[in-house]
Amino acid sequence: MRPYVIINAAMSADGKLATRERKQTKISGPDDFLRVDTLRAESDAVMVGIGTVLSDDPSLRLKSEEYAAVRKAGGKDPHPMRVVIDSMARMPADGDMFKKGLGRVVIFVSEKAPKERCDALKEKATVISAGADSVDLVIVLDELAKLGVQKLMVEGGATLLWSFLSKELFDEIRIYIGALIIGGKDAPTFADGAGFTDPAEFTRLSLKNIEKIDDGVLLTWIKKV
Amino acid sequence: MRPYVIINAAMSADGKLATRERKQTKISGPDDFLRVDTLRAESDAVMVGIGTVLSDDPSLRLKSEEYAAVRKAGGKDPHPMRVVIDSMARMPADGDMFKKGLGRVVIFVSEKAPKERCDALKEKATVISAGADSVDLVIVLDELAKLGVQKLMVEGGATLLWSFLSKELFDEIRIYIGALIIGGKDAPTFADGAGFTDPAEFTRLSLKNIEKIDDGVLLTWIKKV
Repeated sequence: MRPYVIINAAMSADGKLATRERKQTKISGPDDFLRVDTLRAESDAVMVGIGTVLSDDPSLRLKSEEYAAVRKAGGKDPHPMRVVIDSMARMPADGDMFKKGLGRVVIFVSEKAPKERCDALKEKATVISAGADSVDLVIVLDELAKLGVQKLMVEGGATLLWSFLSKELFDEIRIYIGALIIGGKDAPTFADGAGFTDPAEFTRLSLKNIEKIDDGVLLTWIKKV
Repeated sequence: MRPYVIINAAMSADGKLATRERKQTKISGPDDFLRVDTLRAESDAVMVGIGTVLSDDPSLRLKSEEYAAVRKAGGKDPHPMRVVIDSMARMPADGDMFKKGLGRVVIFVSEKAPKERCDALKEKATVISAGADSVDLVIVLDELAKLGVQKLMVEGGATLLWSFLSKELFDEIRIYIGALIIGGKDAPTFADGAGFTDPAEFTRLSLKNIEKIDDGVLLTWIKKV
């Protein structure tokens, strides 16, 4: 059984995750930050792509110490497992994800990843080869299930989201839409990558929920039913 | 007094107006088509950019003959004025917009537009020079007001929307979000162009209304209040 996959990200009213320079951008507000932290706390693992690591250096830790304490009291690691999709093992060994006390980091690489980079990362994280030229998400989900991950939160960026969305490897998509326009034909969007060209291929959705949060709105989509 | 400007467009759940090949894409359903036709019928003019004309060749006519009849009975043209922003006068003279009986077409060009192209278009449309190197939307809105336009609907595409949004030349933004993923880093989004880089510059919005229509949702935004 593959994990239950929740894609969660925030975009501007015009569909952008950040500026064209990939500058991390505050799109939501305090209520949405709490919602995201709650979702992280309820997840067994939180995943990002290497592009997001290189531009934002996220720790993906829980912001709420109370949530971390509750998890710990329940016999879990205080923070959910952090997972990075990183075909070429470009993950910096001094990133915020490797701060002490945050728990396990799992890095999925491809067979093309340089051995010396993988060896260096193995000192800090679990490194798993999953795919020939690039990481295969079907293998990733299978490996995560073996590691006990039942609920996975995928946070971005645009390229990784496209991979999950185009292969329909998700159960829910939660898109927070913020009250701002970022613009830019080169700004990262909710789903970049190649994109579909044939309407017959489009990933079709059903709207499950609409919720006003802060100045924007949270849309929850599921696969078309 | 400049016209009341309503920006109206449909995007996929991931913020795309069409595929990367600019293939026109059905994003909404019958209830939303009726909503858009109603909005057109209530508008004095409907505007698109030349990019949209070249890829979609829209007539921008009212689909409902009843709406056209009501307008005519009220002493108006059966269809709203069609307006094209076309700095270099690339508008094809055999486009659907020039079909008989649809009424007035106004084309805004820049001083850089080749004279012979402008002369050819003048046989079919009102051609107005508004700007040195490219069309200046402030002049456009001023000229449209002089032509009696009080309510203007701006339908796209991505580059024109960015111009209106980045200069805050709008009163309302109505974004229909459809139940599908199109994806693609090169697919047109709700606002392309250069994009903002400094968060202090972002166009800030207030959410005015949320309405479920067909399988998706219509968000109405206004300038931040």
